[in-house]
Amino acid sequence: MRSLPDTANRLIDEFSRLPGIGKKTAQRLAFHIMKSKEDSANRLSEALIDVKTKVRRCSVCAGITEDDPCSICTDPKRDETMLCIVEEAPDIYAFERTNSFNGKYHVLGGVLSPLDGIGPDDLNFKSLMKRLQEGMEIVIATNPSVEGETTSLYLAKILSDLNVKVTRLARGLPVGGNLEYTDEATLIRAMEGRTLI
Amino acid sequence: MRSLPDTANRLIDEFSRLPGIGKKTAQRLAFHIMKSKEDSANRLSEALIDVKTKVRRCSVCAGITEDDPCSICTDPKRDETMLCIVEEAPDIYAFERTNSFNGKYHVLGGVLSPLDGIGPDDLNFKSLMKRLQEGMEIVIATNPSVEGETTSLYLAKILSDLNVKVTRLARGLPVGGNLEYTDEATLIRAMEGRTLI
Repeated sequence: MRSLPDTANRLIDEFSRLPGIGKKTAQRLAFHIMKSKEDSANRLSEALIDVKTKVRRCSVCAGITEDDPCSICTDPKRDETMLCIVEEAPDIYAFERTNSFNGKYHVLGGVLSPLDGIGPDDLNFKSLMKRLQEGMEIVIATNPSVEGETTSLYLAKILSDLNVKVTRLARGLPVGGNLEYTDEATLIRAMEGRTLI
Repeated sequence: MRSLPDTANRLIDEFSRLPGIGKKTAQRLAFHIMKSKEDSANRLSEALIDVKTKVRRCSVCAGITEDDPCSICTDPKRDETMLCIVEEAPDIYAFERTNSFNGKYHVLGGVLSPLDGIGPDDLNFKSLMKRLQEGMEIVIATNPSVEGETTSLYLAKILSDLNVKVTRLARGLPVGGNLEYTDEATLIRAMEGRTLI
């Protein structure tokens, strides 16, 4: 049995290290690269290097940016009194796409997870504390997972002594969902959080 | 609405040009790269460049290789009288993994597809003709698609005047398949091609 050239195997290995890319997909990508024109591989290669050299963390919100502080942190039109706390930088762009929030963001850089050894010191809590001002609204937008909820409760606790309003995202039925297939935990939250129409 | 930094968007664009990678997956990959250590992005970047500079087409079989001719074409232990004709280079490795074929290969580089403007001159037929020797067995291993079948019939026709044995892969039930869910065309082929046990 002959195997692929070494460089091809190395490219397959590197592709399969990416999240959600298995061996088969990695092979398909590598064969695509080998078949495609040279400049398309070069463009991808350059984009990879560029993103690692130019993109950094914003020193204020820990979001990703080319200029520090980022364009959201420096935007005078943004509401300074609203701060949305998210787990990771991509979450910022999930909200930005909705155009439903005009405040600022703060990226925790993860969630509390004692089993993985991630405690409060590993997350961006210190920089968060520095940003707090009296009368602010803090919207906790961690994921609705066990770790996300734990982090949310921890945050609510440490913020409770300060003169800030702490809110969190509504739990309930996802738009377009189906009652029949909705899990019990979500249904319970939807019932508990029912609103007047 | 703020969008991502330009370099991040460019990386997402480049990822989403790859086959089977949509916008969402491309974003996920780009965020993974931005979060990962610098050397993992560098390794992928280098692997991309390496594969485009070192990997080339074998001048004999048109398979992919670092050394020309490739290790299969130059292997003296390979049966010179068996030639398996495949559409694309990855197909070679599909057979190699099975250890069921010890002959040599020839990559057509595609299939005949008049609708896409791909005719006989666009495929590696000329180099195939040069490799033919009397008494050879030519195994046509194009995909069991409409274009693959057309190409197979075309090949069988141009090879019929020459003193070579032309065979093609068996059509039938895939191992592990289920009769109930097998499509009719496959069932017809399986019945037509039934063998004594």
